[in-house]
Amino acid sequence: MLMTSGSPGETADLRPFFDPEGVIIVGARRSPGFGFGIPAALQREGWGDRVHLVNPAGGELNGLPLHKAIADVPGRPDLAVVIVPATAVPQSLAELGKRGIRHVIIESAGFAETGESGRALQEEAKRAASRYGIRTIGPNCVGVINTANRFFTVEVVEEALTPGPVAVIAQSGVFGNILLDGLHQKGLFISKAVTLGNRMDVNECEVLEYLRRDQETSVIMMYLEGAADGRLLRDALDGVAREKPVLVLKSGRTGAGKLATASHTGSMSGEDGLYDAVFRQTGAIRARSLDELVDMARVFATQPLPAGNRLGVATSSGSLGALATDAAIESGLELPVLEPTSVEKVRSEAPGWMNVRNPLDVGPSGQFLPAMAALLQDPNIDMVLSIAVMPYAVFREFAQMGISMRQWLGAAPELRDLAPHKPLVLCSLGDPGFIKDLDEALGLDVPVLTSPESAARALAALYRYGAAREARAVG
Amino acid sequence: MLMTSGSPGETADLRPFFDPEGVIIVGARRSPGFGFGIPAALQREGWGDRVHLVNPAGGELNGLPLHKAIADVPGRPDLAVVIVPATAVPQSLAELGKRGIRHVIIESAGFAETGESGRALQEEAKRAASRYGIRTIGPNCVGVINTANRFFTVEVVEEALTPGPVAVIAQSGVFGNILLDGLHQKGLFISKAVTLGNRMDVNECEVLEYLRRDQETSVIMMYLEGAADGRLLRDALDGVAREKPVLVLKSGRTGAGKLATASHTGSMSGEDGLYDAVFRQTGAIRARSLDELVDMARVFATQPLPAGNRLGVATSSGSLGALATDAAIESGLELPVLEPTSVEKVRSEAPGWMNVRNPLDVGPSGQFLPAMAALLQDPNIDMVLSIAVMPYAVFREFAQMGISMRQWLGAAPELRDLAPHKPLVLCSLGDPGFIKDLDEALGLDVPVLTSPESAARALAALYRYGAAREARAVG
Repeated sequence: MLMTSGSPGETADLRPFFDPEGVIIVGARRSPGFGFGIPAALQREGWGDRVHLVNPAGGELNGLPLHKAIADVPGRPDLAVVIVPATAVPQSLAELGKRGIRHVIIESAGFAETGESGRALQEEAKRAASRYGIRTIGPNCVGVINTANRFFTVEVVEEALTPGPVAVIAQSGVFGNILLDGLHQKGLFISKAVTLGNRMDVNECEVLEYLRRDQETSVIMMYLEGAADGRLLRDALDGVAREKPVLVLKSGRTGAGKLATASHTGSMSGEDGLYDAVFRQTGAIRARSLDELVDMARVFATQPLPAGNRLGVATSSGSLGALATDAAIESGLELPVLEPTSVEKVRSEAPGWMNVRNPLDVGPSGQFLPAMAALLQDPNIDMVLSIAVMPYAVFREFAQMGISMRQWLGAAPELRDLAPHKPLVLCSLGDPGFIKDLDEALGLDVPVLTSPESAARALAALYRYGAAREARAVG
Repeated sequence: MLMTSGSPGETADLRPFFDPEGVIIVGARRSPGFGFGIPAALQREGWGDRVHLVNPAGGELNGLPLHKAIADVPGRPDLAVVIVPATAVPQSLAELGKRGIRHVIIESAGFAETGESGRALQEEAKRAASRYGIRTIGPNCVGVINTANRFFTVEVVEEALTPGPVAVIAQSGVFGNILLDGLHQKGLFISKAVTLGNRMDVNECEVLEYLRRDQETSVIMMYLEGAADGRLLRDALDGVAREKPVLVLKSGRTGAGKLATASHTGSMSGEDGLYDAVFRQTGAIRARSLDELVDMARVFATQPLPAGNRLGVATSSGSLGALATDAAIESGLELPVLEPTSVEKVRSEAPGWMNVRNPLDVGPSGQFLPAMAALLQDPNIDMVLSIAVMPYAVFREFAQMGISMRQWLGAAPELRDLAPHKPLVLCSLGDPGFIKDLDEALGLDVPVLTSPESAARALAALYRYGAAREARAVG
């Protein structure tokens, strides 16, 4: 039953955070809030017999006893989630330590992020934890999600528990929560998520190392306000990025942004140029915005690494093709000339007005799929971006004739098999019904993004990551 | 009945394109396509008695006669839409000229965008038009939309005909079409739209001038592949941007992008640095991506110009606040210190852990509305960005308690009235149901964007535009 994702060794220490034998919820309660919602959700997912609730008032919650003291908890719990007011946290840690608990997620806020007295309280909590050798995540976080065993210490939408290959590291609880609520809408499904909060103990470096060994994770996306320790971060990224792509969104680039992070998670966000250098040296990929981070993750999670930087663009809108082309070139890709045989193949079926070149604007010719096929098979092309748009009037006409998008696309999903080693990304915009149909027709293996520029940049990032990894493997 | 939007004078010439007395559709037909869809849609909108159809085969279409020749068309049409194969266009123009038509939209493709022979054909069409003093839009376009009188020469989703303050200039037909299909989903409604295609005659400069005088238009968004004439574009922008914001997305920034535009609409996209200079000199605002163009248009269409560059940020997610802050600073905004009275006002109601500063991270305190109010009323603040996010679990809890977003937000729409002269933009992400509820609760006057970075940049653009306009009014 237990899904042991971490292998033994240096990082096995974090396993109980994601895969506990049993969990104590300190601060469970009958009124709305985390202390009510988390136990209920864990029960729903079948964790009822391994969830132990603590509340000094006693009584019961949804049929589970509310133990008056941590010492009263029976069984073999190896993890605790603490959701009590900040001032009560050091005491809870001491009691948990006495009860033999060595892994604690502190969700309570009101520590270093609030200023001087909060910092003192965090120090006190840290001492309490150290005294018992307790490893902690937080405070000021919402802990973890593991989709493999459906264990979590935060309520998210049901769809966020669908297993996928992307691990999420966030500093802030709210942000992590919001991100998880929305990712499934973008076709992005996760393996594990961790929100680190103030990083009193466990930091992003240890988590990166843990995720490096996690078999369910193939891509890591990370939101960072500042490194707990710059040198350690570089070392961690250096190791992890050799094996798995690490996509980073870093805030605190500006003076005002730095102040914002300081009062948010007590992070010192440091000189942005240094971070840029660390990311570049280690092969970590930096996103320029949240939307770009998500688009990149979708592409990295589904596409192979390209053999080179040569992009082929097929489009039914010349304008969108031009926008994608600009973004691709500016991000370091090339749009090579097509092989004469590819040109001939497309031209033989195309109307006279069609320019068979790269980007390949098929307009309303209906030659979209043959164009994609020709690009995928062209030896000069390492990866393909297909921009599939259709005016609503045309889409409606198809629908009225009873032709579904799946029928219209016909062999599209099989196109993927023409060149399984070449990244393939679709982009579409316009009527949401059309995009949804397209997305469903293509399936999860081919991402459908809605920004031509972001799609091109995500493919460029895929190339950069592959090239950096290869250079470092050789070097 | 007629909505005369252009005033008389130098640009009155374009009026029949948007507001015809009657229109001839050359190439109407009974099989699927533009020639079938456009007449049917115009009839549906009440234009039946002013639509005249031409097809050499004769017969009828939806109860309207198909005239065998242009010469046979009765009544007083003053506009024609040509949807015949490219090679038949010059002849159609000659016949339209003889029939007294002086305004023609050529939707047919297969001209300069396809190469040498297409260029020759376009020259031939141009000569035919000149012979009769015909003004043309196109070829290789889908013409116009006017939401005021519900006249259009392209089928779009019904919602795209909802009148709004934003005019759209696009070069490409497909792109314009797709854009219009999707804009309403972003809360963006249009006054007029023009797709220019190959610009054999009417170009963006004349249209800009026309829209400057159009009373239904207060914001102009333009997608440009290249200027028909760089000097004329500068002059046109220089005049228009003094009165109305012009938001520009320009492709062909790179060599490959330039080639793409050449084969798309036959545009020479020129040196990108020159365009940047023209936009800067004239106060036109350049967007970096299509998504940014749309977000900017939404903000410009609904918000007043700020008095200065001082931004206040209220957020329920510290991370998103930090990301927005970085983007704001990098785009030239400041995040000033709040007035002591504002700080006191917020602090008096806030929990101890809340840092009352700018950006103002209210976390889960429930103090979102008071924070927004304090920022809007702070004399140090010229504009406000509010990032409202809520974990799904909390949103669901409210919903289960029967509390709607509208109730939760309570006085939010009235907040707008606290400082009607200060721009106010919301940003949200996460569960789509939450965002939709928020959007509906706030109404159309307060845009809800989904990218914190783009929201900040749109506010910065609003400031830059206002500052440029003021400097030029003084200078």
